[in-house]
Amino acid sequence: MARHEPGSVDHVACIGAGVIGSGWVAHFLARGYRVSAWDPAPDGEARMNRLVDAAWPALESLGLAPGAGRDRLRFAPSLAEAVGGAAFVQESAPDRLDLKVKLLAEIDAAAPPETVIASSTSGFGMTEMQAQSARPERLVVGHPFNPPYLVPLVEVVGGEKTAADAVDWACAFYEAAGKTAVKMTREVPGFIANRLQEALWYEALHMVAAGEATVEEIDTALTAGPGLRWAFMGPFLTFHLAGGEGGMGHMLDHWPPGSMDPAWTRLVPPRVEGALRDRIVEGCEDEAAGRDTSALIGERDRKLIAVLKALREA
Amino acid sequence: MARHEPGSVDHVACIGAGVIGSGWVAHFLARGYRVSAWDPAPDGEARMNRLVDAAWPALESLGLAPGAGRDRLRFAPSLAEAVGGAAFVQESAPDRLDLKVKLLAEIDAAAPPETVIASSTSGFGMTEMQAQSARPERLVVGHPFNPPYLVPLVEVVGGEKTAADAVDWACAFYEAAGKTAVKMTREVPGFIANRLQEALWYEALHMVAAGEATVEEIDTALTAGPGLRWAFMGPFLTFHLAGGEGGMGHMLDHWPPGSMDPAWTRLVPPRVEGALRDRIVEGCEDEAAGRDTSALIGERDRKLIAVLKALREA
Repeated sequence: MARHEPGSVDHVACIGAGVIGSGWVAHFLARGYRVSAWDPAPDGEARMNRLVDAAWPALESLGLAPGAGRDRLRFAPSLAEAVGGAAFVQESAPDRLDLKVKLLAEIDAAAPPETVIASSTSGFGMTEMQAQSARPERLVVGHPFNPPYLVPLVEVVGGEKTAADAVDWACAFYEAAGKTAVKMTREVPGFIANRLQEALWYEALHMVAAGEATVEEIDTALTAGPGLRWAFMGPFLTFHLAGGEGGMGHMLDHWPPGSMDPAWTRLVPPRVEGALRDRIVEGCEDEAAGRDTSALIGERDRKLIAVLKALREA
Repeated sequence: MARHEPGSVDHVACIGAGVIGSGWVAHFLARGYRVSAWDPAPDGEARMNRLVDAAWPALESLGLAPGAGRDRLRFAPSLAEAVGGAAFVQESAPDRLDLKVKLLAEIDAAAPPETVIASSTSGFGMTEMQAQSARPERLVVGHPFNPPYLVPLVEVVGGEKTAADAVDWACAFYEAAGKTAVKMTREVPGFIANRLQEALWYEALHMVAAGEATVEEIDTALTAGPGLRWAFMGPFLTFHLAGGEGGMGHMLDHWPPGSMDPAWTRLVPPRVEGALRDRIVEGCEDEAAGRDTSALIGERDRKLIAVLKALREA
């Protein structure tokens, strides 16, 4: 049972063609894949076509892969026909556990045995979703961010019965398909990005609830402030840079989280010391990969300018 | 005592010329102002010049205002000479309360009586900082985000003794000077953007502490995911759009914060119902300003594409 090379997959199947599923269809078409889609809704095909219509100009503007085209899309009459010859399956059904468990078992039964099957779920772990599948070792979560045809992130993680090589294969395939795959080694509710997003969202709600800021003030403060940097520099590298020559070590030692008085947020931070402190500092040094403060500032400014100019023109 | 028109200020003073103060100097120079700077450090002028040197190519690339130039900068021999003729003063000294209280009183004593004086503090409220000033009514916080010459945000808020018209004047001046001013009506520790940033930061630290994700996974998940959208669309408008035709009302009624089980973040959300729910929905409708789902999706995609292309080229 040899899998396809992740970089030479030609035919993928998309099961479920709502906003997320159709977004995947559009993405895979634009990257040059042959796509078989299926959705049980009576108007499933028409809805999918409308959603791909809406996405297509954006994808053309970003640049299609050689040979890519909407003529490589087929809406299949059944799930089995959709996944029958596919080298990869992306499942994007509604996020209900009973439905996911049953659907993944059906996909597993119908897809070629070497094919990796990924679920777009944002709510469930693969351990609970793979419960009724005969070959659970090839089932992974591949959680996209909306819209999947534009936002690069896919969070990839297996369940207890998933084989490590299926997770690796999925990551390599997604990268070959133009996505940015983050491979997680543990099932974490909400994965990573939604956890970060939720923490910020809850603080925003608390601020409105307490009369500290309005909806519009919060949205403006984010988009005119830290949101601009977060488009290309995450919180760790941002604070590593803010630490100057001493980097993250300086930040953690001189401005330990929670040192603001009174607290700037309602979420209590962990104590960052000892091995945890060292792990974070090392992670930042790995990520900086030899770039010193001046190189990071140069890169930050270059990217900030690019983003500011782009948004001004858009 | 008539203030200058906010849009026709020519001469501003920057007190304190570290990273933030020199960033302000660079910004005001690029927008065409005459700038007087002062810093008590023996190498203050040299350091300021190095920092402005480093910022200048970025500012030229973004486009200078007509008549703008570095020849309009003067490093003054004393605080009094720096602020003497200035129509606006930006104070960016180190964030120590005793120092700020004393320095603001000195600036207040030396600046023309109609001049608004803003502090870059990220740590203190103006009520505590204005304690020893003779004319506290013209003292405001004008909190920038680093680097001030590129990130547009300035959070503006007064203290208990600040006149409302000074806050309004500062906002109008900053907007005329090319910044995005968010006027706050209450003193809140951390203002808005740092609160949002801290909430996300603490969740990120908790994830590393618990072994749920690494430094690099978190940074990648943010920059390849929600960070890209937050460069132009804040959390409220993002979820208003995610609610489809029903907007934020649909989101709050069908996915109330805290409904994920198990929780996606360690921060417990407020209960969002009744008047709070309505306030948030109205805030989103005001911000959407008549744009329906399809218009918002079109705008989101256009801006996402612009940002993605810009970052690809940078």
